[in-house]
Amino acid sequence: MSDVVAIMSMSLDGFVAGPDDDVMQVFDWHFTSGDVEIDTGGSDPMTFKVSEPSAGHLRDLTPRLGAVLTGRRTFEVAQGWGGNHAWGPAFVLTHEVPAGWPRPDSTVHFVTDGIESAVRQAQAAAGGKSVGVHGADTIQQCLNAGLLDEIQVDLAAVLLGSGVRLFDHLAGTPAVLGAPTVVAGVGVTHLRYPVLKA
Amino acid sequence: MSDVVAIMSMSLDGFVAGPDDDVMQVFDWHFTSGDVEIDTGGSDPMTFKVSEPSAGHLRDLTPRLGAVLTGRRTFEVAQGWGGNHAWGPAFVLTHEVPAGWPRPDSTVHFVTDGIESAVRQAQAAAGGKSVGVHGADTIQQCLNAGLLDEIQVDLAAVLLGSGVRLFDHLAGTPAVLGAPTVVAGVGVTHLRYPVLKA
Repeated sequence: MSDVVAIMSMSLDGFVAGPDDDVMQVFDWHFTSGDVEIDTGGSDPMTFKVSEPSAGHLRDLTPRLGAVLTGRRTFEVAQGWGGNHAWGPAFVLTHEVPAGWPRPDSTVHFVTDGIESAVRQAQAAAGGKSVGVHGADTIQQCLNAGLLDEIQVDLAAVLLGSGVRLFDHLAGTPAVLGAPTVVAGVGVTHLRYPVLKA
Repeated sequence: MSDVVAIMSMSLDGFVAGPDDDVMQVFDWHFTSGDVEIDTGGSDPMTFKVSEPSAGHLRDLTPRLGAVLTGRRTFEVAQGWGGNHAWGPAFVLTHEVPAGWPRPDSTVHFVTDGIESAVRQAQAAAGGKSVGVHGADTIQQCLNAGLLDEIQVDLAAVLLGSGVRLFDHLAGTPAVLGAPTVVAGVGVTHLRYPVLKA
């Protein structure tokens, strides 16, 4: 069964977005932390500019991913990734399929029957690779349902003070995680924690 | 002027203590993360048992400290460190000097006239070394008053879900921090961020 990996940039004080849903402060390291260019691919590609350690981290992580699972807000903010997410088929957990979707030539799918179904469908589409889970609410749902294998946090050197927390509404705490692998970038620290199953 | 360094163990979700003020889950790495013994000194000494990278981190950090600044809660939980804190003279920020204190042969002092006075007194006592600041509330007061030079977080591989947050009630956010130096221990990651002054 393919692994399910939470992937999120977070401020030192635990936020994935500031007030007004602004993600730029925590996501900024993708564009400002160095000179190594990384093209994301997908149908709405971005070019990251990061330090060599962060580039190594991304080159290691991205090829392991075969599908992506997100919530509706992430889908909206990303404007549907141009119809094709860089990591592969995308599954968006939502109450209602948005107007105009699904689209022809798009690999973005919508799941309206809950987190377990969404994870199962993403795993089936991942071709033996891992499922990357993006978005605080979706990650919390996976964690609370015992469906997460790994937490990959890109810890940004910023204090936001308020906003959307990555780890909120958790069930089953305190929860000890496995020892992380650590990659030190420039102004960002990549931490990969195994989730220990009960 | 001697540097003022916040030093705190924190869970991945941002807590320095769980419900009921329990600090053991975040402080546990001091006793369980390896085989290298580190004696803290002071008049109520502890023996830490940590991994080699964490031992190197502590051997680097501790000799740089010449005084300690904490709040009343930390003083109470530590039972006054037996009268002499391992890092040097201790300054406890409080509204009222506790009964029976100050004690003879003790280097624990009490400051009742606010954070700026407390920092100034600790700096004067530090003999050119750094002042270590301990306790979430005291660290927040230093940060908000612009008195902090460095934030040293020992990030423990645990999710607590609730409790006492390290970064709460912050003024002046968003605040970009300097790029951290990173030491990967076992189940704990030592992150040292310079605080950028406005």
